[in-house]
Amino acid sequence: MKNVKSAECIMCKTQIKASPNITVCPECGGILEIVYDYEWIGKNTSIEKIKKDPDRSMWRYREFLPVEETSAVSGLRAGGTPLYSAGRLGNLLGYSRLFIKDDGLNPTGSLKDRPSALAVVKAAEAGISSIACSSTGNAASSLAGSAAAAGLSSYIFVPKRAPAAKVAQLLIFGAHVISVQGSYEDAFRLSSEAISRWGWYNRNAAINPYLSEGKKTVSFEIAEQLGFSAPDFVAASVGDGCTIAGIWKGFKDLFAAGFINKLPRLISVQASGCRPINRAFEAGNEILEPADENTIADSIAVGIPRNFHKAVRALRESNGITANVSDEDMLHAMALAGKTTGVFGEPAGMASIAGLMKLAGKGIIPKDSLIVSVVTGNGLKDIKSASKAVREPIKCNPDMESLLAAFEADEGMR
Amino acid sequence: MKNVKSAECIMCKTQIKASPNITVCPECGGILEIVYDYEWIGKNTSIEKIKKDPDRSMWRYREFLPVEETSAVSGLRAGGTPLYSAGRLGNLLGYSRLFIKDDGLNPTGSLKDRPSALAVVKAAEAGISSIACSSTGNAASSLAGSAAAAGLSSYIFVPKRAPAAKVAQLLIFGAHVISVQGSYEDAFRLSSEAISRWGWYNRNAAINPYLSEGKKTVSFEIAEQLGFSAPDFVAASVGDGCTIAGIWKGFKDLFAAGFINKLPRLISVQASGCRPINRAFEAGNEILEPADENTIADSIAVGIPRNFHKAVRALRESNGITANVSDEDMLHAMALAGKTTGVFGEPAGMASIAGLMKLAGKGIIPKDSLIVSVVTGNGLKDIKSASKAVREPIKCNPDMESLLAAFEADEGMR
Repeated sequence: MKNVKSAECIMCKTQIKASPNITVCPECGGILEIVYDYEWIGKNTSIEKIKKDPDRSMWRYREFLPVEETSAVSGLRAGGTPLYSAGRLGNLLGYSRLFIKDDGLNPTGSLKDRPSALAVVKAAEAGISSIACSSTGNAASSLAGSAAAAGLSSYIFVPKRAPAAKVAQLLIFGAHVISVQGSYEDAFRLSSEAISRWGWYNRNAAINPYLSEGKKTVSFEIAEQLGFSAPDFVAASVGDGCTIAGIWKGFKDLFAAGFINKLPRLISVQASGCRPINRAFEAGNEILEPADENTIADSIAVGIPRNFHKAVRALRESNGITANVSDEDMLHAMALAGKTTGVFGEPAGMASIAGLMKLAGKGIIPKDSLIVSVVTGNGLKDIKSASKAVREPIKCNPDMESLLAAFEADEGMR
Repeated sequence: MKNVKSAECIMCKTQIKASPNITVCPECGGILEIVYDYEWIGKNTSIEKIKKDPDRSMWRYREFLPVEETSAVSGLRAGGTPLYSAGRLGNLLGYSRLFIKDDGLNPTGSLKDRPSALAVVKAAEAGISSIACSSTGNAASSLAGSAAAAGLSSYIFVPKRAPAAKVAQLLIFGAHVISVQGSYEDAFRLSSEAISRWGWYNRNAAINPYLSEGKKTVSFEIAEQLGFSAPDFVAASVGDGCTIAGIWKGFKDLFAAGFINKLPRLISVQASGCRPINRAFEAGNEILEPADENTIADSIAVGIPRNFHKAVRALRESNGITANVSDEDMLHAMALAGKTTGVFGEPAGMASIAGLMKLAGKGIIPKDSLIVSVVTGNGLKDIKSASKAVREPIKCNPDMESLLAAFEADEGMR
């Protein structure tokens, strides 16, 4: 890879060769990060070149991605999701320039399709035909879908609580699904053991440093959709910590290459019932205290976030802000954003909006800031929660009298 | 509209002015069709111009669409869905050049987002702020989403059997939802009465001739994605008849404007338990006999197709082919396509693949034909059916011994 210099441990700074199947730092067990040659990148791509690229997927930013020049990258079209101006929602919340990045429109319905697309390429580079992960759901279905498209086998370890919709989706993709009768942590641990035992490619996001490199492409798109400039704030929900770290890496890469001239501040939104990253950052001690996983937002219910350090560092470096939201806040955000923008996000996906609601009017975010809220997953993935967020439809018999009576009885209908 | 000449009745050929809220022919009640000035279109757009357009939505084909030059078309990003080469699936079915157009990746998860995007613009042109339809689901959620994004009210009449996932989605979009305790036909009739009574904008696809003009954009994209050429065959599932008529109109428009040099043959796939269009075409009498609605594929369970004549005409004009598939065929297609392509379609969405399976090896479709299968809706919309198409995940306790035992007991897992 001509664009990549090395993989560097974020803890002890040890540098190792960026081979396809590296995991953690061989010296201290810390999380690795891919280090680029921005000079090479600057010589081999440009804003003008990217603008002209007919490829609508995340691979339009290939020079910024850690794959061999010769690797094939076909498969599902990850990326290319819309950035919507959300004027009416912004007005309700008290922000004049609010945008929603709807990453639920990725091929399998979540932002995780980006890292999975990358993982499948790295597995092929490593010469491995089976790929595995543990996941609360979105990483799993994205991996299963990407693997199916690429002709690889997938082994997926899901915790007991994973919603049926997400499990059905990955079974459709032909994945070997193991429902671990325990927590996310249990599923993660068992998947790690199985991966070592059978030599599968490891798609666990925190352990595999290439995954956040896939996630960072959401920031590339946001910047491009804003005319190659950074927003003032980017709000995202946070579970394992990998997504917010990836978002930050994306903006840092563009900044380092001179494609944008400032960096955004990050807003980390966690569930009140599971906020180990926000708690540590708020306390200023950056110490991970395992948390319970009390939230309906299964995608961010991670009591022991594997990418804790990268996430906390991203918040520190970006002068970040935290917001902690209840399940009710998320359900309220789903309904409010749905009816004012036409975007349907899952609870974790809409947590970013809930966080912005919570921060509104507190003097922390100037009203006229350019804010992007990243909706990380499609609402169709968790219909049970959606149903909790809304009323029932009215029922009537198929005649006008029944309809008039139903309208009469229900003032919300006129 | 400089690009539109008139609206013409497909039955009696009466021509009327194409005003925003026309419905059926004032003379005979037949379905209207929008007639274009292809000379104007040829002067105002070109293949080169379209290729360079950074707009990734269906509005990149604006010169082919029946909206005023001054109308705003922001809102959800309808269109811009991927066309995947489905080599492994094609090989299994016996076709060497099979492609899948995954229209389930539209904003609310179905092809119907295209006509809904158009309907919202026409409602605004008509000066109407409430818009209504009856639907088995996808038209409803797409209308609700598009209306929410555009700031309009929506009134949706759904039949009793509409899946909960689809109803939850449109409630999230803030629609006024009326669950009509009866069939699709009952819901359609009641919606028509209510629309007349309250003067809402009518988004019922067959009655409103602009809707198939939105649907045709899927063909524009297919042609563009194939380098501005037409495939040999296009397979799509058929319910109301509007989608296949729209697909045909798209190719005819491109052909008339000289953007492609041949037309594809259409493959109309219906459920064996509800196939009034295929039956009439196969019988050669083109007479509509109402059918029962016996299929899990709710999106195409239409016993009295409102766009019968346009659909049958499309089949006739294109030298079309029919295929009738059982629920089992569709479920099988969902699982087979899922694991070989990574595309997750709802049963009606995958009916097109099931139809191609059924036609394979019969000498009707040459093996090396370029075939596009249009997947019209996202599988996440009907998880209940997806679950029927696949096995259960294996369950194990969070330790290696349990995992080994589970693998041992289940040969499908290794």
